[in-house]
Amino acid sequence: MSDAFELDFNRQERLGFPEVIFGASKPLSVLKDILQAYQDKGLNALATKVQADKGQALCQHFEGSLFDQESGIFLLQEPRVASDKHDEVAILSAGTSDAFVVNEAYYTLQFLGCHAERFNDIGIAGIHRLLGKVEQLKRFKVLIVVAGFEGALPTAVGGLLSQPIIAVPASIGYGVSEGGHVALNTMLSTCANGISVVNIDNGYGAAMAAYRILRSLPK
Amino acid sequence: MSDAFELDFNRQERLGFPEVIFGASKPLSVLKDILQAYQDKGLNALATKVQADKGQALCQHFEGSLFDQESGIFLLQEPRVASDKHDEVAILSAGTSDAFVVNEAYYTLQFLGCHAERFNDIGIAGIHRLLGKVEQLKRFKVLIVVAGFEGALPTAVGGLLSQPIIAVPASIGYGVSEGGHVALNTMLSTCANGISVVNIDNGYGAAMAAYRILRSLPK
Amino acid sequence: MSDAFELDFNRQERLGFPEVIFGASKPLSVLKDILQAYQDKGLNALATKVQADKGQALCQHFEGSLFDQESGIFLLQEPRVASDKHDEVAILSAGTSDAFVVNEAYYTLQFLGCHAERFNDIGIAGIHRLLGKVEQLKRFKVLIVVAGFEGALPTAVGGLLSQPIIAVPASIGYGVSEGGHVALNTMLSTCANGISVVNIDNGYGAAMAAYRILRSLPK
Amino acid sequence: MSDAFELDFNRQERLGFPEVIFGASKPLSVLKDILQAYQDKGLNALATKVQADKGQALCQHFEGSLFDQESGIFLLQEPRVASDKHDEVAILSAGTSDAFVVNEAYYTLQFLGCHAERFNDIGIAGIHRLLGKVEQLKRFKVLIVVAGFEGALPTAVGGLLSQPIIAVPASIGYGVSEGGHVALNTMLSTCANGISVVNIDNGYGAAMAAYRILRSLPK
Amino acid sequence: MSDAFELDFNRQERLGFPEVIFGASKPLSVLKDILQAYQDKGLNALATKVQADKGQALCQHFEGSLFDQESGIFLLQEPRVASDKHDEVAILSAGTSDAFVVNEAYYTLQFLGCHAERFNDIGIAGIHRLLGKVEQLKRFKVLIVVAGFEGALPTAVGGLLSQPIIAVPASIGYGVSEGGHVALNTMLSTCANGISVVNIDNGYGAAMAAYRILRSLPK
Amino acid sequence: MSDAFELDFNRQERLGFPEVIFGASKPLSVLKDILQAYQDKGLNALATKVQADKGQALCQHFEGSLFDQESGIFLLQEPRVASDKHDEVAILSAGTSDAFVVNEAYYTLQFLGCHAERFNDIGIAGIHRLLGKVEQLKRFKVLIVVAGFEGALPTAVGGLLSQPIIAVPASIGYGVSEGGHVALNTMLSTCANGISVVNIDNGYGAAMAAYRILRSLPK
Amino acid sequence: MSDAFELDFNRQERLGFPEVIFGASKPLSVLKDILQAYQDKGLNALATKVQADKGQALCQHFEGSLFDQESGIFLLQEPRVASDKHDEVAILSAGTSDAFVVNEAYYTLQFLGCHAERFNDIGIAGIHRLLGKVEQLKRFKVLIVVAGFEGALPTAVGGLLSQPIIAVPASIGYGVSEGGHVALNTMLSTCANGISVVNIDNGYGAAMAAYRILRSLPK
Amino acid sequence: MSDAFELDFNRQERLGFPEVIFGASKPLSVLKDILQAYQDKGLNALATKVQADKGQALCQHFEGSLFDQESGIFLLQEPRVASDKHDEVAILSAGTSDAFVVNEAYYTLQFLGCHAERFNDIGIAGIHRLLGKVEQLKRFKVLIVVAGFEGALPTAVGGLLSQPIIAVPASIGYGVSEGGHVALNTMLSTCANGISVVNIDNGYGAAMAAYRILRSLPK
Repeated sequence: MSDAFELDFNRQERLGFPEVIFGASKPLSVLKDILQAYQDKGLNALATKVQADKGQALCQHFEGSLFDQESGIFLLQEPRVASDKHDEVAILSAGTSDAFVVNEAYYTLQFLGCHAERFNDIGIAGIHRLLGKVEQLKRFKVLIVVAGFEGALPTAVGGLLSQPIIAVPASIGYGVSEGGHVALNTMLSTCANGISVVNIDNGYGAAMAAYRILRSLPK
Repeated sequence: MSDAFELDFNRQERLGFPEVIFGASKPLSVLKDILQAYQDKGLNALATKVQADKGQALCQHFEGSLFDQESGIFLLQEPRVASDKHDEVAILSAGTSDAFVVNEAYYTLQFLGCHAERFNDIGIAGIHRLLGKVEQLKRFKVLIVVAGFEGALPTAVGGLLSQPIIAVPASIGYGVSEGGHVALNTMLSTCANGISVVNIDNGYGAAMAAYRILRSLPK
Repeated sequence: MSDAFELDFNRQERLGFPEVIFGASKPLSVLKDILQAYQDKGLNALATKVQADKGQALCQHFEGSLFDQESGIFLLQEPRVASDKHDEVAILSAGTSDAFVVNEAYYTLQFLGCHAERFNDIGIAGIHRLLGKVEQLKRFKVLIVVAGFEGALPTAVGGLLSQPIIAVPASIGYGVSEGGHVALNTMLSTCANGISVVNIDNGYGAAMAAYRILRSLPK
Repeated sequence: MSDAFELDFNRQERLGFPEVIFGASKPLSVLKDILQAYQDKGLNALATKVQADKGQALCQHFEGSLFDQESGIFLLQEPRVASDKHDEVAILSAGTSDAFVVNEAYYTLQFLGCHAERFNDIGIAGIHRLLGKVEQLKRFKVLIVVAGFEGALPTAVGGLLSQPIIAVPASIGYGVSEGGHVALNTMLSTCANGISVVNIDNGYGAAMAAYRILRSLPK
Repeated sequence: MSDAFELDFNRQERLGFPEVIFGASKPLSVLKDILQAYQDKGLNALATKVQADKGQALCQHFEGSLFDQESGIFLLQEPRVASDKHDEVAILSAGTSDAFVVNEAYYTLQFLGCHAERFNDIGIAGIHRLLGKVEQLKRFKVLIVVAGFEGALPTAVGGLLSQPIIAVPASIGYGVSEGGHVALNTMLSTCANGISVVNIDNGYGAAMAAYRILRSLPK
Repeated sequence: MSDAFELDFNRQERLGFPEVIFGASKPLSVLKDILQAYQDKGLNALATKVQADKGQALCQHFEGSLFDQESGIFLLQEPRVASDKHDEVAILSAGTSDAFVVNEAYYTLQFLGCHAERFNDIGIAGIHRLLGKVEQLKRFKVLIVVAGFEGALPTAVGGLLSQPIIAVPASIGYGVSEGGHVALNTMLSTCANGISVVNIDNGYGAAMAAYRILRSLPK
Repeated sequence: MSDAFELDFNRQERLGFPEVIFGASKPLSVLKDILQAYQDKGLNALATKVQADKGQALCQHFEGSLFDQESGIFLLQEPRVASDKHDEVAILSAGTSDAFVVNEAYYTLQFLGCHAERFNDIGIAGIHRLLGKVEQLKRFKVLIVVAGFEGALPTAVGGLLSQPIIAVPASIGYGVSEGGHVALNTMLSTCANGISVVNIDNGYGAAMAAYRILRSLPK
Repeated sequence: MSDAFELDFNRQERLGFPEVIFGASKPLSVLKDILQAYQDKGLNALATKVQADKGQALCQHFEGSLFDQESGIFLLQEPRVASDKHDEVAILSAGTSDAFVVNEAYYTLQFLGCHAERFNDIGIAGIHRLLGKVEQLKRFKVLIVVAGFEGALPTAVGGLLSQPIIAVPASIGYGVSEGGHVALNTMLSTCANGISVVNIDNGYGAAMAAYRILRSLPK
């Protein structure tokens, strides 16, 4: 019977970045076995959307690992971003409620060795907060913009800044905006030019899309 | 057999505004009969969403009537707004594509004897256009804000102005925003405070909601 | 790293009403910090949709605060409505199941210094209950109408009364009406003239929309 | 090859009512053949939702037949309702836009030999029109209630009258109520007691449901 | 402040059947107060969809009451159906998983003084089980047919029996049929003649619709 | 510039069946070029969902070709099924309205050299029609079952016959069943054992699924 | 009162495979009674989607039974597949998260006496893993392909292998793919030829569809 | 009255790329006026989704303009891409049916002065076609991947190539995939790392997103 798991270890070689583990639907024992396989090869590994109880158990099991409870990110080895990196990715969000998505992007970028900075609470209902940050944001190479509810922040950002922008809808809201579908559709429908979008709550995917861009740029 | 139509003529007396005729699904002959009944009583009448061919036929049939082809509004008598009225309702929209909804609100307000002014092309992808109009907009008693695609204009307006705001989603867009549902949901989910919403393309309803407010105000 | 929260304290000055805190998705510690920042400035603050355990903890922490468990409204300081205010907003609902939304509107209006009165159990399946209240309701400046299930109450109210009406769908129902979407769509589709709508369960938004109107009226 | 059609001629015998032909998706030639098969057996036949061009062609082909263009009903032989029948079914509707559904129910009942009467324009935005008809409506054995837009008429009727009520949503509306789904869901969610519902625009089905009830009653 | 509940006690007089209490969203204390009001008037009362913990508490509080945990039906007084009643309503279902809906209809009919009989496990994947019951079922005046998953049982019943049929979709299923929406839509789309439908899991509504028919019949 | 089309000619070799052309969204000129490429290689080719005007033009252009207007099937060469083939696939349908899907499956099977037979008008509202065909249907190796509206025919067939069954929803219906989604979901939710489903109107896909099975069987 | 359950014991005789018990919505006591009825007849029985607590209780109650907690499959008697069976069904899946569906298919096939083999972790984001297995997979008579998220694995498999393929969407994913609907729709829309699909998470149904095919093949 | 249009001419200066005109919902006369305003300033302009009749009229009106009927792209001046540009953007698509989206991206990139190359007919049902192009595709700086139906091509591309990838769903398909929503959701759910997505049929938006990236790269 050939029913054991089979990891895609050569993805790093093929694409320049490793396979990542979707933690939500795997039992603790399976996660441990997969992570052990990475550790045995001397590789770091990233698991996303790990529930709190599983994450804490993994953290105790693997020395030197990191678990961010808000986002459910688990890293086999706590990452160290090179000190000479700066202004690579700015992660903007409309409110502190979006922190679980912001952090998923933030830690994924750290795992990939990139510098990221977080800008919270700049929702467009108080547009002056965004206007006051425009000059500072111009320095960054890629912008990730997270928003729940009506998800209009990327449209405003896209009208003021010209870098690559990756929009991430967050599942924050109630009534019609419950689950993040309104934010997603708003971002896909944006009148601002050239904004691309990832799945609801997919901070990890936004970080990977940013990484594909950063790899193309000169060091 | 009691199958003829029965009009709610006493709505004016009961509520202070007349019944209005939904034109889209009524055959020309039925529309003519209904409008004739109003004319026979010496009343003006408003029909909404009248298709072009029916509207033109009605216009020829009823002397002194007005038909706006863009919005499908038909008025039995062209309205005259009192010259001393000013700054009652501002109708803002994100682009010229929304004109069919803007005009439905505009002509309904004229029918009701109110002053209205239209502000087009102030979508938030170029936020400076809205910022430049804020002082001018402060003069108006009620704001109607029309937008298609992602429908984020009311959120930005609501963060800058404090009057009553009625948001109207327009069925302008494609892909996920086809039909106006994204704009509707964005408006319902807005982070701005105290914006209320009417049905997609319901310029008429927004005008009526504005009229309910204007009636409460001192002359 | 710029990841702390940044409050929009000048919204009161800019718009005449303060920013409000969405409590549902914020951890207790974040809520405490935000509310402390308001208290330090000597301001009252309103948090909506606070879960019971967090609300009770906040209530113990901040002396003189108020927590309404049914609606999840938390007020930093219990509000005092001026005794000469009367007949500003009537909040109608179809049944006692809607109380959680009714109360969210009620306490928000108190927070804003407005007088509000609640009228429960006047669903249209027993239309005589509404008919018997029409004269009493004519005294109020603005009507907020809350309904779950098929959400038809605003239509009936709108055919009998001429004030501004803000309809609020409640997430009460089962089968097709689970989640409040049927009530929302009914209200948006209403044949009554000039009713505007806010998001499902958004008693707070309805209160704010009423407040935008009340501010326009002469004292 | 066994690909010819096979009619369920014994349904009349088995159930007391005949099979009926869904006309919308059948080509004219197939409709002619099926109807001819009924005529050859000396039976009347009913086809529903027949498009105008096909209906007119059938009308010319079959002498003594009836085609109602509004509803798309085609009857092989014009029906004669016995003169001593009265007050069997009242068909109520909210507006003249619903006539295409009302007529589908009306002609189906005539085809089945039942007496039916139509009551138009009694939408609940002007509730006095319904209140004024309650005594007259009490005489009927079954009520069919047709409504588009928000579809709230059956709820009001169900709170005032105690007969069996069959609600029919009509595909009249725009924005969220386009296609009749809002009216359908409103009717299914009604707070009134014991109202049952048929598919959108299914006037035929409502008539058949009424007929199942009428057959149970003493003559 | 007029915020107490107001019951529609005269519905019995007006319509011949009483108001019923929706138990799911009311706190225990409110349910107790409402039921006490009925008891004080010497009336029986029915509450639907009462959660187990609340139902058990009510059962202990009100002597002589009945609580069916499967359906969540609570009756203030256990009903007694007159012994000379028979063959009024047959309640058919496709499987034992539907019992919670079947019982809601069953106990509502008992509350209304009607005789009802339950027929389980006659899903159409084994059509012989239905065929073998046809003669027995012909005796009943009204048929209520409950089904989850694909909800096809009413179509088969409607092709074999000619009484009034009320179809009830049950929220039993998974994947696409989770929540009962597939069963609902199947029943609304049925090719069988004259079947009408109530909301998902609305056994109570089906019983009320049956009762409206039974009241019309001669005793 | 590499923008010409590139056909997958070796699919026949790789899989034992050829690539097929989706005709609906290709302009006539592109279809002609693609078909010519097949003819130049001496291969037959199948195009699906070709609109009537394009199909007729292709039929005139390519001698010996076949176009079935009902289904939109175009075959470069009219197929000849070997005379010793029999009882391979039975295609059942609920009514003549489904013929456009039935024929798509039928001609695709002919194109693949398989014997197919069509059985129309055996919908379950008259279950005796299906019961009377059971013995005849037992002879076939694979059953394809097409149905629109509520799509319940496959459930009944699956309870009576034990061969592989492929269900095809047809976009025949109105109201909730418009577009075929109800039939699709019914088929996916079926209580009958081991029925698999293809996309709405995908007669071609059902034929291919049958062909994958037939290829596995001994000749 | 005829409310006991009635099992379809003769399905084995009629169709060659037994009725199966849907465990999710039945209380433990009902499951015990049904299973006891099978045991009393000396038959094995299969229950699907049994929750963990109920499954463990059944396992203790019925000696020699088997409960797989991951899939919720309960078997009255642990099955023994004949040792000379081989290469009947390959079950492919995109990742270890899909194991609960894979196992439902696997144990159902064992219950039916078929040989099945599981191939995990061959998602198309690392297409080399699938390419490396093609030769091995060619040996199997039927392929079942399970996938969550975007569900694209069956398309890739269908382009490389020519056996009958049954695709099963798994409810693994988040954001837009939550619940498995995206995977389902992807599979129904596949450009690969002749893939048929069962309901989300319906490993049991896929196994039954495979069994219908295997029964047709020569031993 | 301030109802004329107001163009965002300074967007080029602010962001480095111009505003673009959404052509679908604007009447010909409005389009002419807007384009004339650009021409008067000596600027080129791009209009998207212009219907054939309007596009042809514009083409005749403005000398030196270009209209691509397939995509509905109108360019005021035919663009000239600098001859030393190469390998900037590869546009991949699954079939010739997607050409209308591919061309929208292609001409937008030309308008922006970028080099683009089109690769058609590499759908994953014949994965060898993609595998054979991998080396050639590695040369490009950005990949745009267009697909309709199940939209799985970006997943396969993302597993083989490491550049920035922008996925565009095309509204090509029928049944569940009608309108492009399945392709959109597949792309959002992709298991491949770091793919971002734009609205259905939004070739223009994908080109703009690519342009934001290209601008960041060294010349």
